[in-house]
Amino acid sequence: MPADRSQGGRPTISEVAAEAGVGRATAARTLGGYGYVSPELRERVLAAAEKLGYRTNALARSMSTGVSHTLGVILADIGNPFFAGVMRGISDASRARGFDTIVLSTYERLDEEVAATDVLIDKRVDGVIIASAAVGRDEVKHIRAAMGRGIPIVLVDRAVTPLDLDTVVIDNRGAAREAVEVMISAGHRRIGFVWGPSSVSTPVTRRALLETARNVWTDGERLRGYLDALDDARIPLDPELVMTGPKTEEWATQEVARMLALPDRVTALFCTETDAVTGALRAVRAAGLSCPRDISLIGFDDSAWAAVMEPPLTMIEQPVRQLGAKAAEVLLDVLDGGEPRHEVHTLSSRLITRASVAPPGKGTFYSQQSKP
Amino acid sequence: MPADRSQGGRPTISEVAAEAGVGRATAARTLGGYGYVSPELRERVLAAAEKLGYRTNALARSMSTGVSHTLGVILADIGNPFFAGVMRGISDASRARGFDTIVLSTYERLDEEVAATDVLIDKRVDGVIIASAAVGRDEVKHIRAAMGRGIPIVLVDRAVTPLDLDTVVIDNRGAAREAVEVMISAGHRRIGFVWGPSSVSTPVTRRALLETARNVWTDGERLRGYLDALDDARIPLDPELVMTGPKTEEWATQEVARMLALPDRVTALFCTETDAVTGALRAVRAAGLSCPRDISLIGFDDSAWAAVMEPPLTMIEQPVRQLGAKAAEVLLDVLDGGEPRHEVHTLSSRLITRASVAPPGKGTFYSQQSKP
Repeated sequence: MPADRSQGGRPTISEVAAEAGVGRATAARTLGGYGYVSPELRERVLAAAEKLGYRTNALARSMSTGVSHTLGVILADIGNPFFAGVMRGISDASRARGFDTIVLSTYERLDEEVAATDVLIDKRVDGVIIASAAVGRDEVKHIRAAMGRGIPIVLVDRAVTPLDLDTVVIDNRGAAREAVEVMISAGHRRIGFVWGPSSVSTPVTRRALLETARNVWTDGERLRGYLDALDDARIPLDPELVMTGPKTEEWATQEVARMLALPDRVTALFCTETDAVTGALRAVRAAGLSCPRDISLIGFDDSAWAAVMEPPLTMIEQPVRQLGAKAAEVLLDVLDGGEPRHEVHTLSSRLITRASVAPPGKGTFYSQQSKP
Repeated sequence: MPADRSQGGRPTISEVAAEAGVGRATAARTLGGYGYVSPELRERVLAAAEKLGYRTNALARSMSTGVSHTLGVILADIGNPFFAGVMRGISDASRARGFDTIVLSTYERLDEEVAATDVLIDKRVDGVIIASAAVGRDEVKHIRAAMGRGIPIVLVDRAVTPLDLDTVVIDNRGAAREAVEVMISAGHRRIGFVWGPSSVSTPVTRRALLETARNVWTDGERLRGYLDALDDARIPLDPELVMTGPKTEEWATQEVARMLALPDRVTALFCTETDAVTGALRAVRAAGLSCPRDISLIGFDDSAWAAVMEPPLTMIEQPVRQLGAKAAEVLLDVLDGGEPRHEVHTLSSRLITRASVAPPGKGTFYSQQSKP
């Protein structure tokens, strides 16, 4: 294909290479802004390009070099503040190295994720970052297919166990364990987990909860951390204190209302998402209870709001932008000619202690019906 | 260019057209998913494509048809929940019509916006949606340049007065006026405006505030709404009650602390952004004051957090996703062959009344130094 034939006086990469006295590949790497070129050769190529009036064109460049300078990003929901922050990290790190991003949301639907992967392959993106909803071996075919086409892939926020891929996450299990331990240390033994798996086989046992079919990785890890802390303190799991069902603020309110109406009601809540926190707080208010006097609470993820709540909430802060930036950097290093290291890169989260945890109330509790 | 020559057995659009007995343009429109094709012809083309095993390739399609099926989006900050919500609306509406999105953040810097526009032109996006930081005639050259290349552009969230473009916004001025009127009706006359222009010429007069050089459109409109409400109630503007300077949560806290320490201190606050709300609340707490007993407050934009605050906050809710979806639809209608209508599409916002507004406190106030 005569991709380098000069058209309408527009100089080609080969002409720039000849002018600079370098190989075509060196000129292509310099003008394409990818791969290593020594400073001296780079200087010569840029001088030649300027002399000849060479102007890159992203699409023509993509056709002739196979590099589109675009990363594909597949997230659960770009409208969710957590993923928006991750996306900002990806976007900033990519732009700093001359790459743009195409972003697609899946809303945790595997069929949407499969379709999004096809779209990105079709767009000839150079690499893909995925916060995947895939769990089991049968659910990763689309990722394997992309890998089979030689497209580098980095996972973010969620590990996918059957795949040996570079993965950027936080220690969700450790963060959850630490938060629950804080509540146990304060004296709590009836600690609600909001939210858990969306579906679970009955009877709801520890094993059923952990093996549930549709459970994203982060949810499972946070549940494991909760169980770790209970185990250490020899507190038996009470499945009634683990929310299952739709992961929505409304359902969190319903489920917490149920836990508050139990004869031996919860005295503390561990909430794994922002909407779980606000949903739980609605139920606490509706039951006429107060935090932390009647109910202690710790949640993912910290925000400016959590700090101005009354009481200010003790929260787990994730390094949201850094998760995205690290994922982009790992991917761009591979595109720059590095070898994929198939590593799990674990970034640090932080428990920000404020005022939403106190010892369980000593007064008499009335098990009351609550209207959320 | 032999773009339609069959390679390696892959059927071309022309071959599909011949098989279907339709013109090449009809086949291209059908397979590209753009423009109008009658249901009957579409059916024939799709049947022929299936029979021949035709598979679209986004990049090849882009080269042969000039349509990349990609929209470019330029926003202030994809990590900001407001713009993340707008982006989700754009993304959903685009995907529903077979388009993907490349998103770039500008952080309100005009040079970043100019660079982002160049990138999108270079990527040959089919159209661009911009939440522009441009204000004056001298700041819109990059947008005019893109228009000059025939790239359809739709503005979202912010009008740009010198340009006659389709624009999707809310009535920021009306929404601000309504909120301030609610506080005036409750008896307030010392109402702080958080936040205003980032820079302003001195002396700080009404005229200087409104003519300030760097002020995004939404900020200016919200300030106009505040002044409208004061004017109607014959309350003179006190420039000391308008925050100017950096638009950050920290500076909002500082400025509100200053307003609370005035001899004739503010009794109500109108906050134009989420970070302005949380920054203001920090200052109120640090001053030992309580909302709404000592200080009333209304803010942009509503969130799940605002509803679970103590007190629940009265907030302005913007139709965030709809702003994005409408912008995408207007743009896609033009790409589908419609004429740009150069209209301002104004979507409805809503004041959600909760419990953060009360009459000004009747008790004695001590002007106290606050440490935010």
